Amino acid sequence: MIQTAVFGFGNIGGGVVDVIEGNQSEIVKRIPEGMAVKYVLDIRDFPDSPYRDRVVHDIDIILNDPEIRVVCETMGGKEPAFTFTKRALERGISVCSSNKELVEAHGAELLEIARKNHCSYLFEASVGGGIPLLRTLIESLSQERVTSILGILNGTTNFILSKMEAVGADYAQTLKEAQELGYAERNPTADVEGHDTGRKIAILSSLMTGKTVHYDDITVEGISAITSSDFDWAHRKGYTIKLLGRSARADSGLQVLTAPYLVPKTHPLAMVNDVFNGVFLHGNMVDDVMLYGRGAGKLPTGSAVVADMLEAAAHQGETVPVRWSNEVLTPLPKSQNADRYCVRVPSANRADAERALEGMVEEVWSNEDDHEFVCATKRIEAGELEARLNQLGDSVSRIRILA
Amino acid sequence: MIQTAVFGFGNIGGGVVDVIEGNQSEIVKRIPEGMAVKYVLDIRDFPDSPYRDRVVHDIDIILNDPEIRVVCETMGGKEPAFTFTKRALERGISVCSSNKELVEAHGAELLEIARKNHCSYLFEASVGGGIPLLRTLIESLSQERVTSILGILNGTTNFILSKMEAVGADYAQTLKEAQELGYAERNPTADVEGHDTGRKIAILSSLMTGKTVHYDDITVEGISAITSSDFDWAHRKGYTIKLLGRSARADSGLQVLTAPYLVPKTHPLAMVNDVFNGVFLHGNMVDDVMLYGRGAGKLPTGSAVVADMLEAAAHQGETVPVRWSNEVLTPLPKSQNADRYCVRVPSANRADAERALEGMVEEVWSNEDDHEFVCATKRIEAGELEARLNQLGDSVSRIRILA
Repeated sequence: MIQTAVFGFGNIGGGVVDVIEGNQSEIVKRIPEGMAVKYVLDIRDFPDSPYRDRVVHDIDIILNDPEIRVVCETMGGKEPAFTFTKRALERGISVCSSNKELVEAHGAELLEIARKNHCSYLFEASVGGGIPLLRTLIESLSQERVTSILGILNGTTNFILSKMEAVGADYAQTLKEAQELGYAERNPTADVEGHDTGRKIAILSSLMTGKTVHYDDITVEGISAITSSDFDWAHRKGYTIKLLGRSARADSGLQVLTAPYLVPKTHPLAMVNDVFNGVFLHGNMVDDVMLYGRGAGKLPTGSAVVADMLEAAAHQGETVPVRWSNEVLTPLPKSQNADRYCVRVPSANRADAERALEGMVEEVWSNEDDHEFVCATKRIEAGELEARLNQLGDSVSRIRILA
Repeated sequence: MIQTAVFGFGNIGGGVVDVIEGNQSEIVKRIPEGMAVKYVLDIRDFPDSPYRDRVVHDIDIILNDPEIRVVCETMGGKEPAFTFTKRALERGISVCSSNKELVEAHGAELLEIARKNHCSYLFEASVGGGIPLLRTLIESLSQERVTSILGILNGTTNFILSKMEAVGADYAQTLKEAQELGYAERNPTADVEGHDTGRKIAILSSLMTGKTVHYDDITVEGISAITSSDFDWAHRKGYTIKLLGRSARADSGLQVLTAPYLVPKTHPLAMVNDVFNGVFLHGNMVDDVMLYGRGAGKLPTGSAVVADMLEAAAHQGETVPVRWSNEVLTPLPKSQNADRYCVRVPSANRADAERALEGMVEEVWSNEDDHEFVCATKRIEAGELEARLNQLGDSVSRIRILA
């Protein structure tokens, strides 16, 4: 029996225990000796939990138990998760994490510690919840030059956008509803302002390039400025609106950003609705590949953590390879990110807008009856667009177009 | 350098060579010593190919070369592929195959030979072309009880159905166009009658259950009877039509079939268009997962073969585990497959149809103005449906509804 421990008995940690206990009959097909949760590490007690006898408060009990070869870290946050992870890896205990904040900040360093200690650091569940995304990128596509990754990586914002689209409601009202349903936190900033998606696309960018792409270096925009009239225009032209994490290799460098995009209704990502996530990869040989599934939730995320624990257990004494070095790759600055845009101004400002965008208008979307002037631009760098639109002040709105 | 050989230098074999040669810079990140194609085995010569010097006609040259540790089998058909694969495995040489016919017929046996000889038999490319599907099922979801698989697994039929839908054309005309474009063979039977999808869902069923599900035991229906009026009704009720391979665990047994289905427009598989493939899995913990990509094509399929070759090379001297035993699992007979159906008869036969379907009509779709009577049934076993519809003769048409 492979003995394990769960660091952090919250929602995901509870899911890990449920999957290991509930699916033992499947687990033994991969790991014939089976897998058990010997300890649960938390500062709290859980007197009503069937696992209360396994709860410990002192990590040393776990680290000093020679039976423990694999643990999962489902604590979230940087500390004490970072210290606990390092200490486990230094003892040759593999760590499987769902903690995107820690992975984003210290992934390369923790992978190096794992290598030195002949154990594994794996983190499938840190991006895309239950979707088997990282293993696909690292292993199944290791023969590919992956040139771009486009993802709907946050269930909360996708729920809000799907709802705004379906019922024509405005942002504030939909956010409130999402909070009531438990799909959005009381303080929704990390989700709605794109921080969560940003951390995930930073991790994906690091895995795509094999270098370290820092969250702090990427452009992050959220969805709080999206209005129902953005959706009206999107529908009129055959688009929906999605918050995308995007990482693309270009001749000039790596373009990494998180921002809302108009996505053509015919694009496979357009049908990723509600709390689901979807990730679209492009490889130079395999062309387009998409993965879709539940990006959050106790059991789907717990399942992804357990997948890593089985992988680590199947490779005891060695390191499951993950190519991510600590060499920093700084993406293009925000101003140099090039995209097509939909630009809207009140009709009264039409002449000013046309002057500002001279030579860059690809298609005019509005007609004489509209009270707005709306157009799609050619591909333009964000810095140049903002310089051109500057003179129009607050009257102008713009949203990127995926094309 | 890991030296390899390609058995069969057709479209996919050529793709394998192109991927290994073209993406060596990616391959060395996984296999630091690199990978090279030392031999190409074919009965033909290729005087104009840059690889002409590597062509051999005698398999023993390859099998007797101790440098060769991994080969790919991209010959197709059962013989001589079966004999060649066995001979290689018996020498401890791993074999990576794109040959669905051989995998379906002899997968369990070849896996057993690989295990005995401490090498691997892998076949990612035999189902879903470039989509990293089998590894996901075998490895990333090994902690899951996968309860159903639903797939669009054949690009030719999906192209035809997508085209019929887009332009309202009829089947015969669209098939002709597909043939002119090279998307359908001159003899299209294996694709349009569902045999190709059937073999693939048989392989997926075997991997899902760990037992052997034979193609000959499953229900196979094709798309040649689909008409433009099927699409008219589909659209009117919010569906599209897809040829699905379907495998689902039920209390009474395993339901495996290949047949055209009405698929709700809101289902993620509805947006898998043209030559793309998509596979929808349900696991008891992870819920729904979908994978999407190019189900055919030289480079995508070649890429999947190379992924397996890298996996085999990374595990030299051991067997990459694939759970598929030779214990035969016979699925439910065709008559016991239960589905919802859309049933259509001319208005003149309405009374007969209502009598025949008494108690099984869930919703009437047609109204007084239609010249047909159209309804959706409750879930009903195929045997019972056919017994009930028998008296209506040729006037009745039926198509399954995915729900």
